[in-house]
Parts: sequence; C-alpha cells; structure tokens
Amino acid sequence: MTEMARYTADALERVKDKAPLVHNITNFVVMNSTANILLAIGASPVMAHSPDEVEEMTAMAGALVLNIGTLQEEWVSSMIRAGRRANSAGVPVVLDPVGAGATGFRTAAAHRIMDRCSIAVLRGNASEILSLASDDVKTKGVDSSLTLSEETVSAAMAMARSLGCVVAISGEEDCITDGNRVFRIGNGQPLMTRVTGIGCGLSAVSGAFCAVDPASPLEATAAAFGFYGCCADLAITASDLPGSFFVAFLDRLYDTGREQLLQGLKIRSEG
Amino acid sequence: MTEMARYTADALERVKDKAPLVHNITNFVVMNSTANILLAIGASPVMAHSPDEVEEMTAMAGALVLNIGTLQEEWVSSMIRAGRRANSAGVPVVLDPVGAGATGFRTAAAHRIMDRCSIAVLRGNASEILSLASDDVKTKGVDSSLTLSEETVSAAMAMARSLGCVVAISGEEDCITDGNRVFRIGNGQPLMTRVTGIGCGLSAVSGAFCAVDPASPLEATAAAFGFYGCCADLAITASDLPGSFFVAFLDRLYDTGREQLLQGLKIRSEG
Amino acid sequence: MTEMARYTADALERVKDKAPLVHNITNFVVMNSTANILLAIGASPVMAHSPDEVEEMTAMAGALVLNIGTLQEEWVSSMIRAGRRANSAGVPVVLDPVGAGATGFRTAAAHRIMDRCSIAVLRGNASEILSLASDDVKTKGVDSSLTLSEETVSAAMAMARSLGCVVAISGEEDCITDGNRVFRIGNGQPLMTRVTGIGCGLSAVSGAFCAVDPASPLEATAAAFGFYGCCADLAITASDLPGSFFVAFLDRLYDTGREQLLQGLKIRSEG
Repeated sequence: MTEMARYTADALERVKDKAPLVHNITNFVVMNSTANILLAIGASPVMAHSPDEVEEMTAMAGALVLNIGTLQEEWVSSMIRAGRRANSAGVPVVLDPVGAGATGFRTAAAHRIMDRCSIAVLRGNASEILSLASDDVKTKGVDSSLTLSEETVSAAMAMARSLGCVVAISGEEDCITDGNRVFRIGNGQPLMTRVTGIGCGLSAVSGAFCAVDPASPLEATAAAFGFYGCCADLAITASDLPGSFFVAFLDRLYDTGREQLLQGLKIRSEG
Repeated sequence: MTEMARYTADALERVKDKAPLVHNITNFVVMNSTANILLAIGASPVMAHSPDEVEEMTAMAGALVLNIGTLQEEWVSSMIRAGRRANSAGVPVVLDPVGAGATGFRTAAAHRIMDRCSIAVLRGNASEILSLASDDVKTKGVDSSLTLSEETVSAAMAMARSLGCVVAISGEEDCITDGNRVFRIGNGQPLMTRVTGIGCGLSAVSGAFCAVDPASPLEATAAAFGFYGCCADLAITASDLPGSFFVAFLDRLYDTGREQLLQGLKIRSEG
Repeated sequence: MTEMARYTADALERVKDKAPLVHNITNFVVMNSTANILLAIGASPVMAHSPDEVEEMTAMAGALVLNIGTLQEEWVSSMIRAGRRANSAGVPVVLDPVGAGATGFRTAAAHRIMDRCSIAVLRGNASEILSLASDDVKTKGVDSSLTLSEETVSAAMAMARSLGCVVAISGEEDCITDGNRVFRIGNGQPLMTRVTGIGCGLSAVSGAFCAVDPASPLEATAAAFGFYGCCADLAITASDLPGSFFVAFLDRLYDTGREQLLQGLKIRSEG
C-alpha cells in the first residue's frame, strides 16, 4: 500500500464528506453523463454557461471545469469570464480541450482560454494535449498511438513547466505531471473509449478531487485518474459491452470503497 | 384504498390512453432523460425552444413545462412567449425553477416568468421554491433540511395562495398544496437525488398528468408525485446503485400497473 | 442467405475497420445517445455546430448527418454551410427532418436545407417525410398509420425520384427507396419508439454505412436499417422494458456479428 494509494482513498472520502460544488461549462453531448458521474462520486454538479451568471456560480464553486466540445463563440467568452473569476477566487480550473487540433477554432479557443486564465489542470488525450504544445515541444516528435511513449511524457513535462500547470494525458497508460514529478496510472479499460463522455467525466472528477485539496493539483488529479480507472476495472468484470458497462461504471463510482481502491490502484510515481 | 389512490391509477391510465403532447423548454442536462421519462409513462414529449416555433408548438400541446436549468437570456423570452400562448390556449404550465436562489439571474428569471405568465404548478425542492417567496413568507423562517417542516408547509401554502397556483415541493416527504388543501407523499427514495434529471423529470410527469385533467392541477400533481415515487420504491428493490437504479426506474415507469400503485401509494391529504 | 444480407454483414465490417468520422449537427435531446450508438458500432462521432468550424469538420468526415430537432435559426445556417461543404467534398449528407410537418419553422427549415444542399438520404417517419412531399405527391393520400401502405411506398418513390435522393421511412415495416428500387425491412421492435433518440440514431448509423460505401447510398441505408432492426430484435430478448432495452440495444450494436446478422436480417427488395 503506497502513500499515493492512501492519498487517493482519503481524497475520495473528502469528496463524499464535503460534496464540493463543481461548476461545469461543458459540451451538450456529455452534460448528462458528467452530472451523473459527479453525483455518483458524491460531488454536487452544476452546469451554467450564461454570461449573466457564470461568475456568480464560479465564485461559489469548489472547482471550475471548462470543456470545449460542441463549442460556439459565445461560450468561449463565458469560459474566459468564469475562468478569470475562478482565478481571483482561488478556485482551481480544469480545462478539457476536446477536439483541439481537429479544427482551428477549437485549437485557438483552447489557447485563448489558457492565455487569459490560469489553468490548474489540462486534461485530454495525447493528440489533443500535444496539439497545444509550443512548436519546439511539438518538433520533438510525438507518437499518436495509445501507448504512452517516452517522447509524449517528455513533451507533457515540458508543457507543464512552460504552462505552470498539471498536464494529464489519458491513454492506455495515463500520465499526470507538473513538469517535475510524473504519475503513471495503469488502471482503466479500452472500452472506456467506446462510451461517450467518459473522458470528459474524468476531467470533472479531477475537478472534484482538486476542490477538496486545491493546494495539491498534481496529487489530486493523479488520485482522480487512479480512482476512475479502478472503477472501470471493477465495472468490466460486470460487463464488457458498452451499454451495460457504463451502467456498471456509474454503480462502481458510487460504491467503490477504501479497501477496493487500496487493492486495485496501479499508480507509479517518478521524479 | 383511498380516493386519491384511485384517482392516481385512473390518471395514469388516462395518460397512457391519450398520450398527451408535453412541450418542454428545459435544460441541456436533462433533455434526454426527460424525453425518456415521458415516453416511458406513455406521454409524447417534444422539446422546442426557438422563438420561431414555441407558440405554434405550445398551442398543440396538452401541457407546457418550463425549466430554468442551464439558462440563457434568449430562452427566458421563449419561455415567456410560450407561457403566454399556453395561457391563452388553456394549456397548463408547469415551472421548475432549477437553481432559483443560487444566482440572481435564475431567481430573477423565475420571477419574470411568473410575472408574465400564469403558472399552474410550481415544482422544485424547498430551497428553490422558498427562494421565490415574498419577503414576509421568507421571514417566517425556513428549514432547509430535507425533512418537511411545518414551517415549510405553511410557507408553501402561503405562496400557493399568493401566486394562485399549486406549489409542489420535493423532499424526503413531498408536499403539494393549492393553499387550502395539502397532499403529503411518502413515496420516493433518497437515491433519486444521486441521478441527474429525476427531479426535472417529475416536473414533466406532473405536466403530463395535468394535461389529462387540466381542471384539477392539485390532484393531478399529487398523483404524479405519488406514482413517480412509487416507481422509485419499486426500482430500489432491483438496485440501490445509481446507474442500474435509473434503468430500473425507467422500466417501472413503463410497466407499473394499477394494482402495484394501489398497494404502494403513500398519499395523505389534509385540509 | 441473400446478396443483401451479405452486403449488410460486409458493410458492418467496413464500418468497424475504417471507423468513419460521422459529423453530426443534431438536436440537444439525442446528442449523447447518438454518440453512444455510433461508438458502439465502431464509428467515430463528432458533434460540431459552430459556423466557425462546421466546414472544416465536415471536410474531414466520412458523412454529415443533419437533424432538425430542437432547432434554432443559427443552426439552420450552420447546417446549410456544412451541407454545401459536404457536397463539394463528396461527403454524403443524411437529413433527418425531425418534427417536419409539426411546425412551419421545421417544415420550412427542411425545405431550405434541401434547396441549398444535395441530400443523399432523407430519413424519418412517414408523417415527417410526407410533410415534405410536393403537393401532387401529398394529394395521393397518405396513410399515417405505422403500417406501411402502398400509398406511402408510392409517395416515397415519387419523392425519391423528384429529389434525386434515397428516401428512407421508418415504421413497423421500413421502406428505403431511390425511386426505382425499394427495400423493405421487417426487423425492428415497437419498443424502439418508447426510447428517445433511437430514430435519430438510425439516421446517424445510416451516415456511417454511407461513409464506407458512398457510391451506394440505397444499399448502404437499407443495410443500416436491417442491421439496426436486427440488433433491436436481439435486444428485446434481453428486455421488453425501455430502460433495460436501450442498454441491451447498445450492447447488441457493439457485438452483433456476421452470423447473427445473416440469420436475423429480414430485407426484401423489389424493383
């Protein structure tokens, strides 16, 4: 039983005790699943995107989660508005750059948000994250496969140092780094990519874990990844088909306890 | 077997026979679950929010359900437009003031809608509903716990009289009142709060029950609450975990029959 | 084992091999279920509606699926913009005219899209599709029941010839025609109408099948209908209640194989 496994089990208990309010400005596809995922772990989700209320909502929240799927211009300004308010209130901000690299609009939007707001955690898959790297990071050469290459880890570390935030990459093995230390997570299942919103849900869960330990976004995010992947590992034993897997996954997010976590977590730390 | 239990079973049969069109202008998080909940009980859901069509849609509907989650300014004007058309067409309007009290924008929007439209049923949890009470009602002191205090019931009755509508408060025990009579519902499960959209779904189901008996919004809403909670009581026997509970709940909304209702309903009336 | 059954089984394998990108501009109610349905069959869904990115997204896609549920004016222009880009890039366009005939705005929007873009497949239920027919087709008299009347088939054939596209009507028996040939599909279950988004999901699946054989939209769409209905026929053996039926349906979309398809398909061709 490692120190990080204990931290993860403690963090989950803090989420259940404090029921942190997680303010999501997220995409239409995953709003329902994100709310259900946050409710299952014991957090309190709220979705609000209007310029008329985002600042007021964020100021009450324990974390702000920004997600650029199904983006439109008005939402970018709401995200920036909320992000700046979160910064001034000391609320950690998680950015999920869905589709960055796929269209110029998404890539530019992610950059605009990061330029105007201080992000605590940037979470996505390797191609999304690395599409946001500076040119000298990109030219190190990036392996787009699911396997976590050493080049990807190096690029993530360079980005984390340059952006001054935690960079968290989901993949067959996950990588969470603040530029100095790296956590690698061996939990999780390939079937998670066959259900929409599971990645976006992890960004929200990372927000919930940051909300209960805002001073330690690296550990909080790594704990969120480990817990989340561990629930998937348990759910796959109930079903390896996507419809019933997602139902079982929600069930596991709700009732996975300390002992199961301590036995199931596969978190390695370096640096 | 009480008169109200018989009314509830009859009302459910009317919904299944008539398949009333329920026009929802609702939030992004719960559109899918609301549609599935209405389809399961035999109603015909439609979601439409554009100013180019809300009036035409409402005029065809058996009920209009307005829900202010994930609100933005343009939607408020569509809601008012639809609400006024519903009023002139004699279509009952249900308002679910999601998040009223949480931000000024939501609270003000609920007031604007109620000022411009005649609402048949105002449904929410205690804190949402009571945030909309006038100052003299509020100062009676409100207990924000899930337990239904006598202060909350008194405040709900005062609001119902003042607004001239049915006030329906969801909680561990539910309270539905028109200011004179009060129905208290003992059905329902705490796990319902761990699945997003179950409360919003009840507003929509209340709309469906009002659609088939628009002259009796008090009884129709109490019947909707009793039926809905009874389905949850049956579903919890299938699973007490949120993912599989919601699946079972949809199944029960579809197939719970007269005998199960008559046995399971816990509706008390006063006044 | 018919030629069409073999084509269907081959088409499904092509979808799983190529994982075509299906760009959806669709309604808020079904975005989540549509993404899950496409992921289950092995396709790659993306939802994007902003004028700032629809053209770029469509140009990368294997198919564009337009769906006019929960419509608002700005989305119509994005759909037209995307549709025209799809046309110039040779990307097949599927149009699902949700609610056409119900309001003037929806009917007009469907016409505007069809006037400005070349549609490969028009998919809906009989009342939606026939509301878009020219007056001389409409006056042939249309049976609005679920049963597929010969009048409906004739009207669909006339529309297909006049519009120069495939017309695909969902019902108790489905009808897919290019104006010359007609495929009739006997697969599918009435319970599919009690779960929201299953019809819209079929439009998206038709897009995925067209993406892997864009030269044959008639066969591709008929194959999509046969496969989809066959999965429903298998799912109903797991549950005939809507919540658990939809879970089982997603599972079957994911794992129904060649042999089950060849045994279960009920596709008849004429003409």
